[in-house]
This record gives sequence, C-alpha cells and structure tokens, in this order.
Amino acid sequence: MNLAQALFAPRTVALVGASGDAAKNTARPQRYLRKHGYAGRVVPINPTRAEVLGERAYPSVAEAPEGIEHVFVMAPGGAVEQALEDCGKRGVPVMSIYSDGFADAGPAGMARQARLAARAEELGVRLLGPNSMGVVNLPGRMVLTVNAVLEMDAPPAGTTSIVSQSGTMLGTVLSRGAARGLGFAKLVSLGNEADLGAGEIVELLAADADTRVILLFLETVRDAPRLAAAARAAHAAGKPVVAYKLGRSALGERLARSHTGALAGSDAAMDAFFRDCGIVRVDMLETLVEIAPLVAGRAPPPRLARAPRVAVVTTTGGGAASVVDRFGLSGIETVAPGSDAPIVDLTMAATPQKYAATLDALLASPECDAVLAVVGSSAQFHPQLAVEPILAAQRTGKPLAAFFTPHADSSLALLAGAGIAAFRTPEACADAFAAYFAWRAPRAAAPPPSIAEVRLDIQMAKSAVARAPGYAHDIPYPVAVKLHDPAVAHKTEAGGVILGVRDREEFLRAAKALPGETVLVQAMESGLAEAIVGYRDDPLVGPVVLVGAGGILAEVYKDTVLRLAPVSEEEAAEMISEVKGFAVLRGFRNLPRGDLRALAKAVAAMSRLALVEGRPVAEAECNPVLVKAEGVVAVDSLVVMKE
Amino acid sequence: MNLAQALFAPRTVALVGASGDAAKNTARPQRYLRKHGYAGRVVPINPTRAEVLGERAYPSVAEAPEGIEHVFVMAPGGAVEQALEDCGKRGVPVMSIYSDGFADAGPAGMARQARLAARAEELGVRLLGPNSMGVVNLPGRMVLTVNAVLEMDAPPAGTTSIVSQSGTMLGTVLSRGAARGLGFAKLVSLGNEADLGAGEIVELLAADADTRVILLFLETVRDAPRLAAAARAAHAAGKPVVAYKLGRSALGERLARSHTGALAGSDAAMDAFFRDCGIVRVDMLETLVEIAPLVAGRAPPPRLARAPRVAVVTTTGGGAASVVDRFGLSGIETVAPGSDAPIVDLTMAATPQKYAATLDALLASPECDAVLAVVGSSAQFHPQLAVEPILAAQRTGKPLAAFFTPHADSSLALLAGAGIAAFRTPEACADAFAAYFAWRAPRAAAPPPSIAEVRLDIQMAKSAVARAPGYAHDIPYPVAVKLHDPAVAHKTEAGGVILGVRDREEFLRAAKALPGETVLVQAMESGLAEAIVGYRDDPLVGPVVLVGAGGILAEVYKDTVLRLAPVSEEEAAEMISEVKGFAVLRGFRNLPRGDLRALAKAVAAMSRLALVEGRPVAEAECNPVLVKAEGVVAVDSLVVMKE
Repeated sequence: MNLAQALFAPRTVALVGASGDAAKNTARPQRYLRKHGYAGRVVPINPTRAEVLGERAYPSVAEAPEGIEHVFVMAPGGAVEQALEDCGKRGVPVMSIYSDGFADAGPAGMARQARLAARAEELGVRLLGPNSMGVVNLPGRMVLTVNAVLEMDAPPAGTTSIVSQSGTMLGTVLSRGAARGLGFAKLVSLGNEADLGAGEIVELLAADADTRVILLFLETVRDAPRLAAAARAAHAAGKPVVAYKLGRSALGERLARSHTGALAGSDAAMDAFFRDCGIVRVDMLETLVEIAPLVAGRAPPPRLARAPRVAVVTTTGGGAASVVDRFGLSGIETVAPGSDAPIVDLTMAATPQKYAATLDALLASPECDAVLAVVGSSAQFHPQLAVEPILAAQRTGKPLAAFFTPHADSSLALLAGAGIAAFRTPEACADAFAAYFAWRAPRAAAPPPSIAEVRLDIQMAKSAVARAPGYAHDIPYPVAVKLHDPAVAHKTEAGGVILGVRDREEFLRAAKALPGETVLVQAMESGLAEAIVGYRDDPLVGPVVLVGAGGILAEVYKDTVLRLAPVSEEEAAEMISEVKGFAVLRGFRNLPRGDLRALAKAVAAMSRLALVEGRPVAEAECNPVLVKAEGVVAVDSLVVMKE
Repeated sequence: MNLAQALFAPRTVALVGASGDAAKNTARPQRYLRKHGYAGRVVPINPTRAEVLGERAYPSVAEAPEGIEHVFVMAPGGAVEQALEDCGKRGVPVMSIYSDGFADAGPAGMARQARLAARAEELGVRLLGPNSMGVVNLPGRMVLTVNAVLEMDAPPAGTTSIVSQSGTMLGTVLSRGAARGLGFAKLVSLGNEADLGAGEIVELLAADADTRVILLFLETVRDAPRLAAAARAAHAAGKPVVAYKLGRSALGERLARSHTGALAGSDAAMDAFFRDCGIVRVDMLETLVEIAPLVAGRAPPPRLARAPRVAVVTTTGGGAASVVDRFGLSGIETVAPGSDAPIVDLTMAATPQKYAATLDALLASPECDAVLAVVGSSAQFHPQLAVEPILAAQRTGKPLAAFFTPHADSSLALLAGAGIAAFRTPEACADAFAAYFAWRAPRAAAPPPSIAEVRLDIQMAKSAVARAPGYAHDIPYPVAVKLHDPAVAHKTEAGGVILGVRDREEFLRAAKALPGETVLVQAMESGLAEAIVGYRDDPLVGPVVLVGAGGILAEVYKDTVLRLAPVSEEEAAEMISEVKGFAVLRGFRNLPRGDLRALAKAVAAMSRLALVEGRPVAEAECNPVLVKAEGVVAVDSLVVMKE
C-alpha cells in the first residue's frame, strides 16, 4: 500500500505496549487518537490485559485482527524485534518505534539498530525511529504520538508541516504556533532514522496536498543526497523548505554528536549544503515557528546587485528602531519610498485610512523589496488602527509582514489566519527577513564524477628537488628552500622554510642547515595578497570547496567562504566577493587590484576534485596562493587521499 | 517638596488638555488613574468644559485648587509654556509634558525646548519630557500616562523599574512582562529629557525602596557622567542596572539620530561606557523583559580566568541543545559535574524527587557557576515533574534559571512569582547568561584631568627632517622616506611612503621623487606584528582608548577593543587579551611571542590623554605600532586637537 497513507492516514493502528494506566506516557497515543477525533480503528497490544482504556486488547500483533496499517511500538527490549517479525508476517507496511536503546545507546545499540533495519528491509516493513515520538496529521485527525503537546484541546490545523530529529521540539513548535493561531498539517518525529529519514519524509511532504511549507528541526544530516533531492522536489512543487539546525558552535556540535550518535560535519559545510539545495536556513528557534507565512507560496527572491530594501511603516519610533537596528546588522536596508527618511513614521498621523493607503502604496512601490508594518500598543488594544488595515492590504508579489511590540496574541492570530507573517520579536523578524533574502533556488545537481585522474589545474611556483652533496637545481635566484619531507604538513611552523635565498652561496648554507638528503627549491614569488583555496570531502554533505584570505591573520579571523563542489568560475567569483579580507584586492584604500578572475579559475579548478571518479581525495589545499595583478600562483599545496 | 514623591506619588495631579471624550488619547490619564485605583485627587484642566469625565474641570492651572503636586500637559502649542508659568506661580514642583514639537521637531523645536528648560529652571519647576508618555507607579497605584498598555486590567506590581527613551517600549516591556507574571514598580517615559534625564531618574530609583532592578531602554545617552554616577549609586545600593540600547548598526544609529535629534557616538564607546559604570548590557529586547530575576539581589559575578560554566539539566535533548549551541556561540561552557557529558540529561529518568535532588546537587557543586533547567512539554502540562522542583530548589548564591521549550505562560508566571529567572527562547536565555557573566562592578570613577601638557609617552621610531638640496640627516640606514606634509593623514595611500631605503644613493632618489622641499627620514623598524593604539573624545561618553591588531587586514576585520580612558596597564593588558589578531603574538602556531606588556604600557600612556587639563585632544593614533620581542615602537602617529 501507499507509504504516505500508512504513515499519515492509516485506517487501523496497533499500539504495542499500550498502557491501561491513563497517566502513563504509553497510554498517550490511545488517549490522543480518541481525543483528537481519529476515525479509524485502534488496536491496543498488551500481553497482560484483555482490554485497555475501554478498547479490546490483543497479546501481540500476530494475534491482532486483520487490516493493521501502522504499528506504533512503545514496549522496551525484545518486544521491538518481535513486533517487527509480526508486522512482516501480517503485511503491516509501517512500524513506528518510540522505544529507545538503539543508535542512541552506544555501539551495542548501534549494532542492534543495524540488525533491525536490515531485517525490516527483508520483511518489507518501513520503520520510523527508533526513538521517535511518532506522527501527527492534524487535518486528518490522526494523532499517533507520545508527545504531551497533544494534551492541548484543539491544535489548529494548517498547511505547514514539520519534520524533527527531536521529538520534544516538534511539540515546541506546535505548542508555540498554536498559542498564536499558527496551524500545522503533518508532524513527524524522525528519531534515529534507521530507515525512513528526513529526505524521504520531505519527499512525501513535497507530494502532500495538505502541505505548503516544510520546516526542519535538525541536529545532524544523515543522508545528505536524499535530503537534497527531496528539497529540490519540494522546490519544484512550489513548497519552501526551512531548516533550523543545531551544531553551530563546537559545544553544540559535541552535544549533537553525543545525543544522536551522528558523525560530525562542519557547520559551514552544512550551510553550503542548505544553500545549494534551496533550503532556507534560520538562526533562531522562534523564526522557525514564525517564518512559514513569509515564504508560503513564494519563490526565492530575485538576486539583487544591492542590499535588499524593506520599507518599514510604523506608529512607534522605538519599536521600529529595535527592528531597523537589527536589519542593519543583517545587511538589510530600510527605505521610505519618495523620501530620504529611513522609515515611514505615522506615529502622529495614523488613521486606519492613512495606514491602509500607505501600505498599498508601499506594496506597489518599485523602491522596496518587502514591507514591514511595526505596530505598537494598538496591536493589543485597538486592532482597527493598524492590524485591520494590514489584514485588508492588497496582496501583491511583495512580502508583507508585521512586528507587534506589545504582547498581542490575538492580533498575531488574526494575521496568522490571514496567512500574513507576524513576528513577536525584532530579532526573529530580522532573522526571517535575512533568511528570506538569502534564499536561493536550488542549484542544478552536480554531474556524476567522470574525471579519471586527480589533477590540480592551478599554477604552482616553479620548483625542483636538490640532492646532497651538490644540491644542483635549475631554479633562478632568489629562491625559497624547504624541508623535503611529505610527512611534515606545516613546514613553516616546523622551521623548515627559508625564504629569500639570494644566491648559490646562501642556498648551500640553507640546504645544509635542513635535515635530510634532499631539499625542495622553489622560485620566490610575490603577490598583492595571499589566499587559501581548499577542498574537503565532508562526511555529512560531501565535497566542498573553500576560498579565504590567506596568511596567519586570516587564519585567526577564519575569513573563508565555502560551497558544495564543484562550482563554476562564476560561482567561485561570488564566493570570492564574500571574503572580507579580499577588500585589499578590490581597491580598498587605493591598493592595487588583484586578479580575482584568475583566483576564481583556481577555485573552480580545485572544486573539480569532486568530479574525480571514486572521489579518492579526502582533502586538498593550496596555501598560500599568491594573488598578483595578473594571475595567481600557489606556493604550497597538500593533497590527502582517503585511506 | 521631595522630587521622588511629586514625580511618583503626588497627592494631587492636574491634567492639562484632559479630554471629555473617553475614546481620545488625552482622556487616558484620567481614565487610567481611576481604573488603577489612584487614591489622590485628579484635577482636569480644560478651558472649554466645567466637567471632564465626571470630575470638575478648571480652565487653567492658575485657576485650579491648591495642592497640585504634579501637572501632566497634553495640550499642544503655547499651552505648554502657559502651564509652566502657572506651575511656577502655584509652586507645582513637577510638570510632565506629553506634547511634542520640541527637540523632536527640528532646530526651531530644539530652540523652543531650550527656552522652556531655562524658564523651568528659573521657576524651580522640574520637567519630565517633552514628548514623554508619563510616569507609572504600580505599587503606589499612580498611573499618570497616555500609554495604552494601561488599558490592561491589573498589571502586576513588582520590584523591577524601567526607564525608557521610547514611550511605546515602556508599554512593550510592561505588557510582555505582565503576560507572564513579571511585575514592575516604577515606569518612566523620558521623552526628550529637557530637564530630568536618565541619570537623575536612575538616581531616584537607586534610592527607591520599591525598586530592586533598574531596566533602561535607550536610543542615545544625553548625559553620560550623570548616568554613570547614578549607575554607581545603584550598584552601591545593590540594584543592578540593565540596558538595551539601539544604534548598534549604522542604520539603527541613523534612525536613532533622526528620531531623537541626538548626537552620534560610537556603539563601541557606548559598550565601554556601560561596562565601565557597571551596567549590564543585553543584546535582545526580550532579554530586557526577562533578565531581572537573574540579576536581582546579586552582585557582578567573580572574574574568572576560564570560560564561565553552566550546568544544564534537562528532560529534553533537543531543547537543551538549542540553548547549549547558543551558549557555545557566546563563549559559555556547559558541564555536568562529576561526568564528562556536556549536560545532565534526565530524559529517561526524571521523577520529581530525582529532579529536585539533581538541582540541589548542582547548586552546591563547585564545578559550575550557574544552573539552567531546560524543561520540555511537562512545563506546559505536568508542572509537578520539573517546574515544582525548580520552585522548591535551595536558594544559594549561584544563579538558577529555567528555559521552557513549549508555550508555558502559567509556568513562566509561577517562576516569576518565586523570583526565579525563566526564559521563553534559547536565544534570550543565552543572551542573559552572557550579559550576566560579562557584568563587572563599576570601575572607580576617573580622576579629574590634572596633566598640564599633551605628551604621548610612547617610543617612536627615530626620525629627522631632511631638506633639499642636500637632504642631510643622521638616521642610520636602512631608512623609510616619507612625504613631510602634516595635511596628508594617510601617507601610504597617497603614495608618500618609500620603505627599505638601503643607502644614501637610494635615499636621494627617493627624497627627490617626493613633492616639497623637505622629507621625513625614519629608521626602518621591524616587529613581530603591527598594532594600532588610539584615543578619541567621544561626543557622548567622553575619552576612550582603543587597541587593535594593526595593518590593513585588521582594518578590514575591525579587530579592536575599546575602553573609557584612562586605563591602568593591567586594564590595558585585559583589553589586549581580547584582540583576536594578537593570537600571533601569544604563541599561535609556535610564532615568537611579542612584548604585550610593553604594548599595555603604550595603551595606558595613550589613555592618559584623558587626564590633560581641558581635554584639548580630539583624537590621537599611533599606527602602526610595531610589537617586538622586547618593547614596542610607533612608526607613525597623529594627534588632532579640538577646534
């Protein structure tokens, strides 16, 4: 049968480990199914009771009636494996597992999970979890979860679906959204993703008629290619995908690993991944709750050659300033079309008519890319002044959103009901706009690897190996003399580099001073500035290419930009434009300009390591790359093959 | 009479411009005074009515009954000046002005405000505003404001007072706090601060028995010395002062200026100012609402030689991760005392007893500096699990706070009632902890200027002026040759610097190539890295000293640290420790260490420009300062005197 139907709208569900004690967590699914109006049949499975909370119980899935489409397992230990065998025998298409003790529980649990997943595949049973809090389908009234958020009486149904690696955070988003009228469609707690993962669930939601926006709460990414394909499918279906991902700090990353047992990828690589496949990334948790109406039904905004411009109309100077200040920190400009003022301040002149006319004029103005209405105390006590004009504003292609300065849940709900984005805090508001303006359509998927051999098509400084005792070489002076030992990665630090050697006499002194029978002799090169160009096959998202300012200060400042590899020269040029330190090559303080086009060629060349068959390269780096007025030359390079 | 009493607890108030139409803004103060239980006498002043909203009205303050202690003026135009004259005649000690058209309205308004303030001083009447929304005293039931937030039925009284340059944001903080049980004491809308300013109001609150914490919403600072003195007085009284200040981005700063007519100071200088006088600065608006219980009754935390450590106890992995990740971005570590884990995860083992015992153990543990309880869905539906143990936890000197992942206003209110900090978002939670750990006791106020002449006690590279045609000089080669024109500030950019001149022949070529009859000859110096040391008399906060990584890349990265001047060598050393780029002088990648002690001496010397009588220096800069293995030497310097 259809996976989506079994997962989200099964006609019969079995609850393995359903408790007869209504206060227990394991009684929740049964209580919630009934409470929220599930129209299908519920079959409690409990070996010790003939009846559970008023419904007839069966000792096992094997002994339960026909027609079960979804089994939810809460029982500990071997009951999971037993339930799986029973599902296989009875032809149950989906089993969701709340029970833990799998990849969340160290190497033994990891092995147990691998066995479970392998067996499920043999039996043709799809698994959600283990360690999943279950599935909720609000429009379909199918609430199959242990998440206590479903104690709430009438969670509003809507068109936003959420997929979460944390069961609790699923409840967080639902609970916070519900409190202000934001409704949801499908909610899926992924758990350990032994079988069904974020990618496949997003695929299902991309095809789901009830879903317009897909939210992701992620601690890691376990199957990047599948998620990327799913995000592309969602984009093609006109459904924005928005991600909040943990692990931005080293501390958070360590916790995510300890909590999920997942591999560690770099957050910068993850960022490149989201951008590459058209996923909007938000920084703040509340933005994840609030952003859906801002992106629903929209395509990524057109690429601008200037800073994005938001027209801010307000009845409160201080309230507008709190969000404008934040916009400024995110590189967003504010404008008042037809005026030099930074905002449209109606504080002393606001009437509902004036407010409405102002909004319509701004929405029609070519001078701004979006409109934000900042509303003060009237949002709480006098909605007719500004909230109603916002509700009545002409819908155009241009985003319209609101920020309310007071506590104003009912006005937030009014806007939610009308599908207009409304924000509780200036910070989440600015975060949402920044995420919206940074949103790009997915890049075409990379071609499959097809290059036969590893070759770095980047000009290197001329060099030769000179051997004791004569140390003959043909590099013209001045030269650099380097330790010739591939095992030493950071030669400068190890004292293995002598620069500016001016003649043969100096050279012999230098060569003899270095250990070993051979030295590397290299033409001295000079450039206007140093760059670093790198490549890495990230364990989570695959090949990435990096460019950054070179030299030791740039290393301290971590001034680098990363994208999924390969990139075109044009994409490389865009990366280069984002490296702050390259200001010195772009005419800053009248300094001579560097050949950034040649640098872009080098970055693109480096990124083509991703196209080598079998992707044998683990890491590669040219550092420093000297950027000259014409051309670039790499002075040192390093390639690390996979083991 | 006592200013605090007239301002916050007048026995009779007069309302100039009180409207008889209850729907108008100008009817609000009268309605609100009655609604919220004002026990004193209200005297409406309205030249066209004998009665306003059921109370006898008088045509002017001059004709009103005796005993008025506070006049609130809402009438436009000349009514303000007339009311002031009447207050003078009648001996009314305080007049608050809602009317606008003063410094908020361009140069003519600015002049009008100056005349008003001067006249008030002559008459002995203290002014709040103009453009002030008034004063609220919740414990005293004196609600003298036009702010619509007072439409709410029973704003909770508490011990936090707030002083705001934006009248609306006063309502924002009150409304958001009230929605979750956070109460307030005094609320003051400063308006244009023609007379009573932030500093004097903070002084009053420092002495106010009802106030334990003072919050500031600031768009600018108009009288830094007075605010600094008031913050010191509040510290001495054991009352933390917390500020949220706009103008962090250039855009926000421009808006603040256009909105308040205030001067522009630098945000970095403002940050130094807050730190110097012991004010806690928060980054997010919501933190301002939520932070009070975290700091109430506490002194600044002890200075740590390591990162601050917070023990995080949780029943939700994902919820804890969202805040832990954010802590990591703020340089805060998390620990689980007695374990290697980054957090104390009770997800599968939580009982109220276990939760309580865990909290008490953490609060007693010497291994952490604070405790954060992260609570999932139980905060919304089962407060007995975690919320009640938090309420019952032993109170120790160590801060205890909570972050609730679901929408849980009633649990937030329970904690607010118990004086325990509780946060709605992981971001505000991390912001509050970062602000708490960055909080310092005020520095001793700077001594008065007493140095007679401007002298930069920093070693300069040896130099001489050489004159055409012979260009004789006594600087040993190699030398640098520079354009000798004080009008050219950036000589390198102007092509006016030739470095590494090796002998007299090269020197003569170089000297003749530069324009003018004289050139500057300077000994070539080299160091391990470059620094910049600067001084500026900031228009808002006064003298500041700056140290940063030097060179053009550091300029691009804006890697500088700023403090109010003067600073001691020890304080300078602390500043230097915060400059990221100086990693290269602290042994990064085995590079040789620089003489940072000598650099600290130079910074302290530069900062003593603040002690020159009359503070004649507007700006000074040594750039670059070369930091050597022993000592530092400045290669170029610039001093700009005030006009």
